[in-house]
Parts: sequence; structure tokens; C-alpha cells
Amino acid sequence: MRKTLHVVKIGGNVINSPEKLDIFLHDFSQIEEPKILIHGGGKIASQKAEEMNIPQQMLEGRRITDKDTLELITMVYGGLLSKNIVASLSAYGDCALGLSGADGALISSVKRPAAPLDYGYVGDVKTVNIHRISMLLESGFVPVFCAITHDGNGQLLNTNADTMASVITAAMSKEYDCHLYYCFEQKGVLSDIDKSDSVIPEITPQYYAALLAENKIFKGMIPKLDNAFNAVKEGGKKVYILKAEDLSALILTQENHGTRITK
Amino acid sequence: MRKTLHVVKIGGNVINSPEKLDIFLHDFSQIEEPKILIHGGGKIASQKAEEMNIPQQMLEGRRITDKDTLELITMVYGGLLSKNIVASLSAYGDCALGLSGADGALISSVKRPAAPLDYGYVGDVKTVNIHRISMLLESGFVPVFCAITHDGNGQLLNTNADTMASVITAAMSKEYDCHLYYCFEQKGVLSDIDKSDSVIPEITPQYYAALLAENKIFKGMIPKLDNAFNAVKEGGKKVYILKAEDLSALILTQENHGTRITK
Repeated sequence: MRKTLHVVKIGGNVINSPEKLDIFLHDFSQIEEPKILIHGGGKIASQKAEEMNIPQQMLEGRRITDKDTLELITMVYGGLLSKNIVASLSAYGDCALGLSGADGALISSVKRPAAPLDYGYVGDVKTVNIHRISMLLESGFVPVFCAITHDGNGQLLNTNADTMASVITAAMSKEYDCHLYYCFEQKGVLSDIDKSDSVIPEITPQYYAALLAENKIFKGMIPKLDNAFNAVKEGGKKVYILKAEDLSALILTQENHGTRITK
Repeated sequence: MRKTLHVVKIGGNVINSPEKLDIFLHDFSQIEEPKILIHGGGKIASQKAEEMNIPQQMLEGRRITDKDTLELITMVYGGLLSKNIVASLSAYGDCALGLSGADGALISSVKRPAAPLDYGYVGDVKTVNIHRISMLLESGFVPVFCAITHDGNGQLLNTNADTMASVITAAMSKEYDCHLYYCFEQKGVLSDIDKSDSVIPEITPQYYAALLAENKIFKGMIPKLDNAFNAVKEGGKKVYILKAEDLSALILTQENHGTRITK
């Protein structure tokens, strides 16, 4: 029988609050089945950029990763956040390893072409080393990935954390029944952005198409939903978008929470 | 038959030069037996401290690790250096994992008492998880440790890299024939600090005592030598102090290099 693997992505709103992060990590540590955590960066990278006088350029709402910014996020995501997260998880009894895609050559990517828009040192995932990640999981380790990968030639690359979670789920589905959880600040995908309780319990591709046609999806949600649908399409067994605080109730006590993305 | 485990410590002089570091990492990647790398921090932490206006206090020649400095070294040692080192090693074919002692709860320490001198968030190693490090080694991974450990309660602690190398060697000697290499800028321990070729080929505890009595050991070398002797005493099979550039000749072609520390 195939084992279940829980792939959990946490975003900025949890990362930005030490109290929320601590509660979340405690909840996460209670999951006893194999699991992977993927974390975004939050506000702290922007704060540090200001302290270090590294100007941050945005292009169509996305951060451009020049050399200094790559160095900055390697320090913040790969060092400060990663090592404090694993220290907390270790305290809660998890054997967590704070990794980038460069570690163990686990996740490689290709630098995005400079045309039509040059985002700098940004990579799109190319390969996931299923065998090595499985070895870590089978040895009881909990991989904790920051949103950095490598090109296989020694170059680190900034990589979207939501996409990493989707691609890891797709790849690991060859060996495990993967459950993917996008944890964010809302209770799920909302039918009315002003009503926090208007959670849509399930979205199929057909329903998604209809919602998009009616402009009913908040623009910022679209990339996350695309990543979620990609994970389902590529073999993910269960895919949810939910509030970080609801994760343990969903997994441990099988309560209904969030929005489930289905085929 | 017990396997050989190579434990290699690199210091600031290699870290400070991207060219030297790259050559060193290529040499290191050529070692085919199980291996562990431990890296110090180099000048970059001080440079970043200046950029971020974090005043650095020294106490009897040692850096005091206040909260801001701990954050800084977590970014620089645990992020910037660690992830770039593993990206390079991955490019050279090693399955390197950039870890702190908090990762996998592999190395725990105790915060040094604030009296008589308060060094801040500095830890002295308490435990090494031999079983988990062995699992990583047996799975073909190469642990790369930065000089940061944890107290087991979520607190990261700055830890001397030379001491970590010694303590890891002592612990892993229960399972492996450990060879420890302290790589630094000189060709070995010198009998005359002004003559770079005056390498002492071997130092026994008796000879060390005599050299100390005659004030013939350069002051900065004493902690390194104490760590080296501790590793020998605790089971390390071979312990060397040598120039980083000579490591591959010593290991791969069995040339004589550096100073061997013996019982």
C-alpha cells in the first residue's frame, strides 16, 4: 500500500508573525505521517533589504531578483527563516532539515529567459530528485524547503514557493499518495472577497473556468489556483487551499476546512 | 570492517576568497569515502554587520553574540555561505546538505553561562546524534555544517567551528575510523612563525607540552591544537592541521602534508 505524504506550503502571513508561526509549527509537528514543508519569505526580506540599502524593483507586481537581492533572500529564506523553523520543529520533536533545492541537488531549475521580461536570478523548476527525497522521508527526516533552487552549475535561483509545492507534489505522487495544503490567511477560496465565511468548499476545473469567466476569482488567487490544479492533474490525491490555523483540524481530526481542488 | 569518515574543517581564509573556495570544494568533491564538511564564517559576517549597522563587540578577542549578531550569523553562515557551498558541491556531483546543528536535531549545545564573561548566544556542544548522521552518510549524503547549533528548545546558538569538528570526530569515532583535517592558511603548525616551510610534521602530547613550556606555539594556534588533541584522545584515528590547498594530495595521493597530531 502506498503511503501518504503531506506537502504543506506556508506563506507570508504565518511567517510574519512569530506567534502564529510557532503555533503553526507545533500543529505541523503533530502530523505523524511523512511530510514536507515549503515556506515563503514574508515581509522580512523587504525589511532587511531596506536595512541593507538594497533597492527592490518590482515588475508587473513581481520582485526582480538581481545579484544583491538573490544574496539577500539566500540569507533570509535559506538562513534566518529556515534555521529558526528547523530549531522550532526540532524542539517539537521533528527531525526537520532546512533545505534549498541546491541541497542534495534535490530540486533543479532553469533560469527564466531574460526576454520578454527580465526577472533576474529566477528559476523555473526542471527536476525533482524523487529517490533522494524519498530516502530522507523513509529515514524519518522532514524536508523543509525554502523557495530557492539551483541550476546544477552552482547558481542559486529564486523560485516561487507555490510552484515548488505543486511540482514537488506532482513528482512525489509517483511514490506516495500526496496531499497538498496551501495554507494562507483566508479560510479558503472565497466567493465574496469581503465575506471571510464565503468559502467555496470544492472547485472542479469546470467550475473554475466558470468562476474565471465571471471574474469571480480575486486576481491574486489565480496563480495559486493554477498551481493547485496542476498538482491535481499531475497525480496529487487531495489538494486544499485553507487557513494555516485549520491545518491540524483538517489532517488530524478530519474536520471539513478550506477549499478542496478536484479533478 | 569499519569505514573511514573524513571530517574536514575549513576556515576564514578559504571562505574569504571565492576562487580558493571553489578550488577547495572541487578538491573536497573528489573524496569518495563518507565525509563531513564544517565551515567557519570568514570576514563576510563582519562586512554584513557593518552594512546593517550591527555593532560588533569583542571580549578577550572573541566576538560577543548578541541577538542581532546571532540573526546576522544565521543569515550569513546558515544561509549565504551554506547554500552557496552546497550549490557548488552539487555542481561537482556531491549530495551535500547545508545544515546547522538544529537541523534534524543533529548537534545540540548548552548556552554558555553568563559569568564570568557573557558571550551572549554562544553554545558549547552537548550531544551529537551519531545515528542520524550515520543514516545521512549511509544514504550517500554529505553533511555540511555551519558553526551554529541549538539548545533543543528552539534557540539557535553560535558555536566554535573548530570545536564542532573535534566533537563530531569524537562522537562519530564510535561508528567510523575518523580522519580529521583542520584546513587553514599555513602549511601546518610552524616551529618558526616567520618561516612558512618550518612545518612540524608530528606533534605528540609530550612534544606539545614542551613547545608550550618554551612559548614556541603561536597563541592563536593553541585552541586549534587543543581541539585536535581532544579529537585524538576521543578516538580520532588521524588528525591533521594543514593548508587547504594540500588536502586532496594528502587524502587522494597519500603525500605527506601538514602537521599530524598523535597520541
